[in-house]
Amino acid sequence: MDDRKLLASIRTLIGEEETADDCAAFPLGDGRVLVSSTDMLHETTDFPQGMTEFEMGWMSVAVTLSDIASTGASPSQVLVAVGLDRPERLLPFMEGAVSCAETFGAKVAGGDIDSHQELTAVTTAFGIVEERYCCRRSGAQEGDKVCITGVPGRAQAALDGRAEYSRFLLTPEPQVSAGQKIARAGASSMMDVSDGIVISLYDIADAAGVGIVLDESAFPLFEDSGYAKTCFLFGGGDFGLLFTASDAVLEQLDTEYTVIGQVVAGDSVRMGDEVLPRKGYAHVWGA
Amino acid sequence: MDDRKLLASIRTLIGEEETADDCAAFPLGDGRVLVSSTDMLHETTDFPQGMTEFEMGWMSVAVTLSDIASTGASPSQVLVAVGLDRPERLLPFMEGAVSCAETFGAKVAGGDIDSHQELTAVTTAFGIVEERYCCRRSGAQEGDKVCITGVPGRAQAALDGRAEYSRFLLTPEPQVSAGQKIARAGASSMMDVSDGIVISLYDIADAAGVGIVLDESAFPLFEDSGYAKTCFLFGGGDFGLLFTASDAVLEQLDTEYTVIGQVVAGDSVRMGDEVLPRKGYAHVWGA
Repeated sequence: MDDRKLLASIRTLIGEEETADDCAAFPLGDGRVLVSSTDMLHETTDFPQGMTEFEMGWMSVAVTLSDIASTGASPSQVLVAVGLDRPERLLPFMEGAVSCAETFGAKVAGGDIDSHQELTAVTTAFGIVEERYCCRRSGAQEGDKVCITGVPGRAQAALDGRAEYSRFLLTPEPQVSAGQKIARAGASSMMDVSDGIVISLYDIADAAGVGIVLDESAFPLFEDSGYAKTCFLFGGGDFGLLFTASDAVLEQLDTEYTVIGQVVAGDSVRMGDEVLPRKGYAHVWGA
Repeated sequence: MDDRKLLASIRTLIGEEETADDCAAFPLGDGRVLVSSTDMLHETTDFPQGMTEFEMGWMSVAVTLSDIASTGASPSQVLVAVGLDRPERLLPFMEGAVSCAETFGAKVAGGDIDSHQELTAVTTAFGIVEERYCCRRSGAQEGDKVCITGVPGRAQAALDGRAEYSRFLLTPEPQVSAGQKIARAGASSMMDVSDGIVISLYDIADAAGVGIVLDESAFPLFEDSGYAKTCFLFGGGDFGLLFTASDAVLEQLDTEYTVIGQVVAGDSVRMGDEVLPRKGYAHVWGA
C-alpha cells in the first residue's frame, strides 16, 4: 500500500474535497481564503544522507511553503514541530527553518519541541490569497497548455550522486513569487511537483477528468540525455510548479516557464502515443 | 535540559513574543486575529499505555484545540500529520481525530501521512477571534482573581491507576465554549493547564511580572485528600483553563469556574506563606 492508497482509505471520513489538494482552504468571509499545509519529514526516510541540520530545517519549511506557493497565496506564518534525538540539534535546525521562511516572506511564529527516537519535523504553513485567484489542483480545461517552472530533475540527479546539483536537493526553493504571478494571471490549475512530474500530471488529469499529452522535444532538461529525461519525468525532490492555462492567460503571464504539453480529452498522461506509467516518489507500506 | 530551557535557547532566533504563548497570532487586518497552535505527540512518551488508536487521534486533536480555546477563539480547521508504524492504524486514529474536531466545532481539513518507527502525530489547529477579545498568557494585573475551570487532577489520578477517572486522561475535552465566554467577558490573561497548574501559574506570573497567592481551601478537588491536592497542583493531562480577571469581569462571566487565588506584587507562586516549586509535567532531555 502506498500513501495515495492509504489516503483513499480515509477519504470518506475526511471528505473528497479535503483530501484532493495539498492545501486546505478556509474562506475568511471577506473574499480572501486562508490556505494551509502540513508535512511530516523524518531523518531515515525523508532527509538525504549527510544532510546538515540547517538543511533539514530549510527543507522542512520549504516543502510546506511550496504547497502554499502552488495556490498563489502569500505565505504568512510557519509553525515548526520538531522531535529531536539530541537537543543540541535544535538550534542549527531552527536556523535553517527560519532562514528558509524569511527568504520566502514568511515568519516562523511558533511550534513545539519533543524528544524522539529520530529527528522528526512537521511544519505547517499558511498563507492568504484572494478567493478569485486561489489555484487548486482541479480546473484543467481541454485545450489548455501544460506548463512547468524551472528545470526539474536536478534534485533526483543530486540524489543519484551528481554533486553539482546538490543545492537543488538540499536547499530547494519554493516558487512563491512565480506561484502568485501564475495564479493572478488566471491559470486553470496548479500544483507543486515534489513527488515527480508524471504522477503530479495524473493528479491534475484525474481532478479535472481530462487527459494530458506531453511534447518531449519541449522538456527543459538539465542535460541532453535519456537519464535527464527520466529524472525530469519521474524524479522527486524538485520544487517546480506545474500548471495549466489557456493561451490567453499565458500571453499575460510575466514569469519564466516552459510549455511541455496540452490538456486533451481522455484519462491518461501520454508522451506522443506512449501512455506514461502512474509512478513517482511515494512511500510504500509493508514490503 | 527540559523543554522550557531548550525553548529558551532558540528564543533570540524566533523572537520573544513568538515563544511566549502556546498559540501564534496573525492579525487578519480587519479586526480579527488568526490563532494557531501545533503539538507533536508520540506513542512511547505521550500516549498512556493501552490507549486505543481512536483515543490517540482524539487526544492529538484535543491538545491543539485546547490551546486555541485558551485564546477565546472559535476553532475552524485542524490539520493532522501522522507517522505510522502500521498503516491499518490510520483509520481508527483518524476516526478519533475527526470525532474530537467535530465535537468542538472544528473540521479536519487535511494533513499528511508518513511511515515512521512509532506512531507520531502532529496536529495544527487554527481559530479566529476578534482582536479585542483575544486572550494571551500575559496581562495579569495585581488585584485580579486567579480562576480555573473544571476539577483538575483527575487525569493524573487516572495515570496513577484510578480507572474511574480514565476518560479525563484518554478523551480530554478542550474548553472551547468556556474559553470564548471568558475571553469575551474580558479576562486579563488565559492559558490551558495541560502541563500542570503551578507551572502554568508561573508562566502567567512571569509573563506579567507579578506574583500569585493561592487559597488552598478553595481548590476544586476530586476528593478530600492530600493526594488530590498534589494532583491538582502538579498533575498533567487535564484540560482546564486558567485565567485571571477583575471582580468586575467575573460578575459578568456566565460559565463555571472556581476562584483559587489572587494576583499580587512579587514574582513567585505561593500557597499561604509557602513558595511552590516551579514544577509540573516537562520532558527532560538526557539523563
